[in-house]
Amino acid sequence: MTQALRHDAMRARNLALVLGAVGARGSVTRAALAEMTGLTKTTVSKLVGDLIEGGLVVETGAVRDGERGRPGVEIRVSGQHVAALGLEINVDYLAVCVVDLARTVRLRRTQAVDNRAAPPVDVIAQLADLASAVVDESVEKGLRVVGGVLAVPGPVDMASGVVHNAPNLGWRDVPLASLLRLSFPVRVENEANLAALGELWFGSGLPDFLHVSGEIGIGAGLVVRGRLFRGAHGFAGELGHVVVSPDGPPCRCGGRGCLEQYAGQDALLTAARAAASIRSATDAPPAAAPGSAPARSAPARSAPAGMPHKEVYESSSSSEMLLPAQQGVSWVLSRLREGDENVRAACERAAWALGVALSSAVNLVDPDAIVLGGIYGPLFPWIGHMVADTLKDRLGQMRGAVPPVVVSRLGAEAAALGAAGQVIEQVMADPAALLHT
Amino acid sequence: MTQALRHDAMRARNLALVLGAVGARGSVTRAALAEMTGLTKTTVSKLVGDLIEGGLVVETGAVRDGERGRPGVEIRVSGQHVAALGLEINVDYLAVCVVDLARTVRLRRTQAVDNRAAPPVDVIAQLADLASAVVDESVEKGLRVVGGVLAVPGPVDMASGVVHNAPNLGWRDVPLASLLRLSFPVRVENEANLAALGELWFGSGLPDFLHVSGEIGIGAGLVVRGRLFRGAHGFAGELGHVVVSPDGPPCRCGGRGCLEQYAGQDALLTAARAAASIRSATDAPPAAAPGSAPARSAPARSAPAGMPHKEVYESSSSSEMLLPAQQGVSWVLSRLREGDENVRAACERAAWALGVALSSAVNLVDPDAIVLGGIYGPLFPWIGHMVADTLKDRLGQMRGAVPPVVVSRLGAEAAALGAAGQVIEQVMADPAALLHT
Repeated sequence: MTQALRHDAMRARNLALVLGAVGARGSVTRAALAEMTGLTKTTVSKLVGDLIEGGLVVETGAVRDGERGRPGVEIRVSGQHVAALGLEINVDYLAVCVVDLARTVRLRRTQAVDNRAAPPVDVIAQLADLASAVVDESVEKGLRVVGGVLAVPGPVDMASGVVHNAPNLGWRDVPLASLLRLSFPVRVENEANLAALGELWFGSGLPDFLHVSGEIGIGAGLVVRGRLFRGAHGFAGELGHVVVSPDGPPCRCGGRGCLEQYAGQDALLTAARAAASIRSATDAPPAAAPGSAPARSAPARSAPAGMPHKEVYESSSSSEMLLPAQQGVSWVLSRLREGDENVRAACERAAWALGVALSSAVNLVDPDAIVLGGIYGPLFPWIGHMVADTLKDRLGQMRGAVPPVVVSRLGAEAAALGAAGQVIEQVMADPAALLHT
Repeated sequence: MTQALRHDAMRARNLALVLGAVGARGSVTRAALAEMTGLTKTTVSKLVGDLIEGGLVVETGAVRDGERGRPGVEIRVSGQHVAALGLEINVDYLAVCVVDLARTVRLRRTQAVDNRAAPPVDVIAQLADLASAVVDESVEKGLRVVGGVLAVPGPVDMASGVVHNAPNLGWRDVPLASLLRLSFPVRVENEANLAALGELWFGSGLPDFLHVSGEIGIGAGLVVRGRLFRGAHGFAGELGHVVVSPDGPPCRCGGRGCLEQYAGQDALLTAARAAASIRSATDAPPAAAPGSAPARSAPARSAPAGMPHKEVYESSSSSEMLLPAQQGVSWVLSRLREGDENVRAACERAAWALGVALSSAVNLVDPDAIVLGGIYGPLFPWIGHMVADTLKDRLGQMRGAVPPVVVSRLGAEAAALGAAGQVIEQVMADPAALLHT
C-alpha cells in the first residue's frame, strides 16, 4: 500500500468515525467529537469541514455551553442535501419513498397493481416511471438521491441482483438489478428483510425482534442487537414456508402444508369468503365453492379447541367472492367490524396457524419480540390474541418468558422504508465514497 | 481512565492481537508478527516474551528463512502448559475432556448413567468426581487447567448459570454454576450450542452449518461465518420442539407434535422396537404394546409415499423391549445391520420427520450445510438419504441449492469438546487475564 493510499484509507475511516459519532449523538460539538473518537481537535475540524462541504452534516445555529463551560457550535446530520430512494415490487402493489440523511421521510408513493398479470419488464418499467417522478421531485427540493435499494418478495442473490424464484410473482431468474436503470446504483434485496429493517429504523425502536411481513407471501426478518440476520446465503426468514402440517395443501414452493397456505393473504381471503357464506343450517350437505377450499385453509382437526366447526359451505356468486386481492383485506376488515363471527373464526384459524409456525421460529431463533406487519397490521385487533395464546400454549412451559406479540405501525411501506434506510446506512458507513464523487 | 489503566488496557489488547496472529498463522516469526499487527518489532518482542513466560506460546526450535531471506525463530501456541476442561451432563451420560491451548485433546472420559433417576446434586457430585480425576491427571502431565464450561441439555441463563428447564432431565431452576465447585470458574451453556462449536473447532472445519445433536432431546446449533448464533436470550436452536404436526403427540415441553416425539432417541427406540415386533400377518387385529405407541411416533398419514404401512403390533415380553435407553441405539444399529426392514422403516419415518423440521429450519435460518451428530451419527447410513430427500422435496423448487446433509465425526463428545474449546477461545481473546493471575 502506498503512502497516498494509506492516507486515503485512514481519512475514509476517520470520516466514517466522525459521521457515526454525530449520528449516534444527534447533535455534538467538535470538542466532544474529539473526545468520542480519540482524534485530535485539528483532525476533527478538518473532517467536519469536509463533511459540511459534502452536505452530510450541518452546524446548528444554537450556541450552548459545552462540557467544560465553553460555548460550542454543534454539528448534526444534514437532512437538506443527501437522500436515498427506497423501492418495492410486491405482488399487488409498487411502492417508492425518498428518505433524507437525517432519516426523515420526504416523499412516498404507493400504487396498487396486480404484478402477477404482467411480465417483469413491464413491472420494472412502471416502477422506473414511479421512481423517476419522485427523484425529480426530490431534485426540486434540493435533494440529491445518491442510491437506491429495491425490495422484492423472494430470495435474492444480492451479489448479482438476480431474483431466482419469486413464486408469488411467478418470476424465475429475473436480473432485476440490471433491468432497472436509474441515474444511480440500485441494489436488490428480499422484501421481508427490508421490512424488518424498516421496523428497526422507522418503527418501534426495538433492537431485537422477528418482524413478520404478511402479504400474498409471508416473510420474516430477524433483527438481533440492531442487525439483520441473513443466514449463509441471504435467504433466511422464509416463514411462509415453515411447516404447519406436513400433509397439508400443496404450496407454490413445492412443499405441503406451509404457513402461507393457512395464513397468507390469498388463503386468508379464501377462508374468510367461504366462512362468510356459511349457512346457518348445519344439516345441509357440504358443497364447497370451487377455489374456496375451506378444508385446505383450516383442517378441522387442526383448529384449536373451542372454535366453531361449521363445515357447511355453499357456492356463491356474490360479488364479494370476486374482489381483487388488494381490496380483499379491506372487505375482511369491514366484515370483522360488523361482527361477522364466521369471518372472525376464519381469521382466528389463520392466526392459530401463524402461532404454530411462530412457535417453531421462536424455538429456532429465540427473538425478544414478534412484530406483526403487512396485512397482519390492520388485522391485529382480531388475530393478535390468538397468535399470542398459541405461542403461550406451545412455549410457555419450556421458556420463562414467551416473546410478546406486537403490531407494526408502518403498514405496507415498511419494506420501501427499510430499503431507503439501507442506503442511508451505507452513506453513514462510508461517507468518503460520496465525497469523492 | 488513568495513565496506568490506559497502558494496561492497551497491553491487554496488544497481547490478544499478537496471540491471535500466532494462532491464525500456526507458526510465525516476530518480524512477521510486527508486519501483521502493525506494532513495532520492539513491542512485539516484549509481548512475545510475556506470552512465553506465561506458557501461552513457545519458540520453535527450527530456524527457517524468513520473508526477506533472514533466518528467524518462529513462535507457535504452546500445548504444554495451559489447558481447558469441557464437561457435559446429558440425559444418559456424563462426559469430561481436557484440551490444551494448541487444541489437542489430551484426556477424555465418558460415563453412561441414567441422570433422570438421580437428583441434581447427586449428578453434579458424580460429575465433580470425574472432573477432579482428569484435572489431577492433567497436573501430572504438566498442564494447568484454567477454566471449564459445562454443557447441559436445556436452555441456560448464561449470566447466572441457572438451568430453568431441562425437560428431559426433569430439572427446573437448577443453579448449576454455583453447585459445581472446582478450583477454577465453570460456566454453563446449552449442550446443542456447544456441540455445534465442537464441530466447528474439532470436526469438519466448515464455517457455516446447522449442527443437529440427536440425543433424548434434539438440539441444534447454528454456526454462521465461524460464530455461534445464540438468539436474543441464548435459547436459539431448540430444533426438538419445532412442529412436525400440530396435532401430534403431546411433548414434555407442553406443545404437541414436536420433532422430539418423532425422532428423539426415546421416540425412535419405541418406534423401532414396535416395528421389530410386527407380525407378518396384516389381517390380525392391532394390539399395540403399552408405551410403544407406534401411531404416535409415525402417524400413517404423515409417512412418506412408498413406506410400508404395517400397522399391526403385538405386545412383547422380549428382553429387547426392556433395554435401557443408552444401550438402545446399539440394539437398533445391530437390527439395521442384520437387515431388519421394519426397523429400517421406523428409522426412515423418524428421518422423514427430521427432514420436515429441518425444512422449516432451512427456511428460517438458511444454513450452508446440515451436520447430523449425536445418535444420528451412527444411524447416518440408514437415515441420511431420507433426511436429504425430504429436504429436497420441500425446498428444491424454491432454492437453487438445498444444503447438503453430512455426518459429524465427533460422536457423543462433541459438546464436551466445544465446551473446552470455548475456554480456549476465551484465553486466546484475553490472554492478559491469565498472565495477571
